[in-house]
Amino acid sequence: MAAPNPYVKRYLMTAGPTPLPPEVELAMAQPMLYHRAPAFIEVYARVLERLRGVFRTENDVLVFASSGSGAMESAVANLVRPGERCVVASCGKFGERWAELCQAFGGELVHYDAGWGNKVDPAELDATLARAGGARVVFTTLSETSTGVVNDVRALADVAHSHGALICVDAVSGLGAVPCEQDEWGLDVVVSGSQKALMAPPGLGLTSVNERALAHAAEQPGGRYYFDWTRTVKGQRKDPPDSPFTPAVSLILGLDAALALIEEEGLERVLERHRLLGRATRAAVKALGLELFGPDDDGANVVTAMRVPEGIEGARIPKLMRDKYGVTIAGGQGKLKGKIARIAHCGYFGAFDIVTTIAALEMTLSELGYELELGSGVAAAQRVFLEAGVAAGRVA
Amino acid sequence: MAAPNPYVKRYLMTAGPTPLPPEVELAMAQPMLYHRAPAFIEVYARVLERLRGVFRTENDVLVFASSGSGAMESAVANLVRPGERCVVASCGKFGERWAELCQAFGGELVHYDAGWGNKVDPAELDATLARAGGARVVFTTLSETSTGVVNDVRALADVAHSHGALICVDAVSGLGAVPCEQDEWGLDVVVSGSQKALMAPPGLGLTSVNERALAHAAEQPGGRYYFDWTRTVKGQRKDPPDSPFTPAVSLILGLDAALALIEEEGLERVLERHRLLGRATRAAVKALGLELFGPDDDGANVVTAMRVPEGIEGARIPKLMRDKYGVTIAGGQGKLKGKIARIAHCGYFGAFDIVTTIAALEMTLSELGYELELGSGVAAAQRVFLEAGVAAGRVA
Repeated sequence: MAAPNPYVKRYLMTAGPTPLPPEVELAMAQPMLYHRAPAFIEVYARVLERLRGVFRTENDVLVFASSGSGAMESAVANLVRPGERCVVASCGKFGERWAELCQAFGGELVHYDAGWGNKVDPAELDATLARAGGARVVFTTLSETSTGVVNDVRALADVAHSHGALICVDAVSGLGAVPCEQDEWGLDVVVSGSQKALMAPPGLGLTSVNERALAHAAEQPGGRYYFDWTRTVKGQRKDPPDSPFTPAVSLILGLDAALALIEEEGLERVLERHRLLGRATRAAVKALGLELFGPDDDGANVVTAMRVPEGIEGARIPKLMRDKYGVTIAGGQGKLKGKIARIAHCGYFGAFDIVTTIAALEMTLSELGYELELGSGVAAAQRVFLEAGVAAGRVA
Repeated sequence: MAAPNPYVKRYLMTAGPTPLPPEVELAMAQPMLYHRAPAFIEVYARVLERLRGVFRTENDVLVFASSGSGAMESAVANLVRPGERCVVASCGKFGERWAELCQAFGGELVHYDAGWGNKVDPAELDATLARAGGARVVFTTLSETSTGVVNDVRALADVAHSHGALICVDAVSGLGAVPCEQDEWGLDVVVSGSQKALMAPPGLGLTSVNERALAHAAEQPGGRYYFDWTRTVKGQRKDPPDSPFTPAVSLILGLDAALALIEEEGLERVLERHRLLGRATRAAVKALGLELFGPDDDGANVVTAMRVPEGIEGARIPKLMRDKYGVTIAGGQGKLKGKIARIAHCGYFGAFDIVTTIAALEMTLSELGYELELGSGVAAAQRVFLEAGVAAGRVA
């Protein structure tokens, strides 16, 4: 696979696709199953039930063969109708995807753009909704992968509801990494994907929809088929559940194994592990004298973004880390291209993934002429893990 | 996986998902790759090129993370606009899916239904287009998986074009099993999926679109985003190619390995192998005194459908074959439920898959009280393979 040196081990530190646990790889290596055979239906039904656990909901979690953006499209196709007012509250590339989707589907878009690297402000959303008037749905983002920002979607939900609007949250990179209590927080729609904190390959779009949102969608049929919620809910509520279209069998087998691992670790401990990974990464970045991009937020535990130091060409950091040291992190997207570097830690990650990545980052920056004390970032991360009592890379 | 007897080997004889070659399983077992890393982009570019080979086209073959129905939705979302006339020429469940899709997207549908088990008749399509007038697109089916019928889409394309309409062909189960010469036959759009004759798991929707169809789509933007052809073509034509949304990495690795096997065998020999598999299965079914469902067609080499003999409860045949003998075939769908049984042979199948399946069918029917001579169906299949000079399950 084009490895410049076969002895270089590979470390995937991007926010999707993320590394697969061996249990997930094994589950997907079994021979193909017919999707209407009991052996598959048993797994499919279990996955639907297990998903409720991570979405923290009693809703149906609709499973599409699609990327996370397909699940986002399902939300817009089912909730937005031509000429109907909708509000997007964004703070980065993926929030802007909501706006593009709403426009593609003919919604009368009111866009509150908090700016890349900022959080969406509940008070600003409130003002936007008051000005706009009559919006039926607010679309926003839990974890903005392009910047690392994590929004307070609970507060945003309260604001949306106070204006009689539904709220639809992109939790593609956030679900399973940072708290997202769909039912307790009253999130009407939560969208996610298989390839981030859920530790499965890309190719499954997940949309958890409450009764209010389902009713809103059913009011206005048409303009969708593959992503139609009514059709998918009808199939999934059958006994045994039935996917209206051929499901991505191997990916569902993988997701089942991944969800079993999350259950075994316990969602609370999974979230605590992500808190530590985020805290350690931020501590390391700061110890190296680098500037975090966006607020220094103890809740931003999906992706850590840092500004590229003055005098270094931004794109060289991920390239050198990957080509020379085998560690794949991401650069900036869109308007942040070359300006930031992003270390993701959502999914199958433990303490020593951070240690390795920071060590490679130190060596890379050093080589690019940035002055630092080798090991100082690593030490900062180690201290976070030591203080928290981490064993074998996980929360002890 | 709920096997009643662990010593029973499992044989998957359904028309999607189909069995995976070991090379495909191995390719998918490698560690996850970042979709923007060179190691993946190299595979992605190669898959895009290899797909042209099986579609027999110079077009861009658009790759979506979706099931085959998602690729069908892409066609309707890009080609049909509210109030615009479109014609569906169907002969079974999947042809009817085109009609449902056209209605969901607000098309003014004219539906020529040839009836389940019949072929779509070019003369009837001609009359339909003449009566309807002004249709911009004809949607039809190459291999109708619900009945085993394979249509002469070349003739149907000529008819559509003579009325100034584009033709869009569902080749989900047909592509790679029966001839489908997109460019030579002038098929404007051909839709397929990864999980049938292409020998990969379900989860990739494929849509090959010519310039005329792309231009038709670009004339009328909106109402789609994830499945928008213009966006996907733009990404795929970049150098290196770029998927606008996270691709289903593991499935693309698997498809690459499967397409390499097709190239190695040679598409002509792959099609010849399917011709023999179909011919042998039909010969076996007839030798057992069973009635083929639909025309006894030497080109129907994707799925062989047979009528359930009088006095036997139809659903018991696939159930007993699966539970007792480990051989999974499909029963009838929709209005054919309980009335037919279907043996699929599109994809990773050789002579002895047919021998095994017919042997299990004989034992099952015998147990259900149908009188037959054990081995007589198997012998009929053997004769077909012997006459054709088959070695090691493949065309010699």
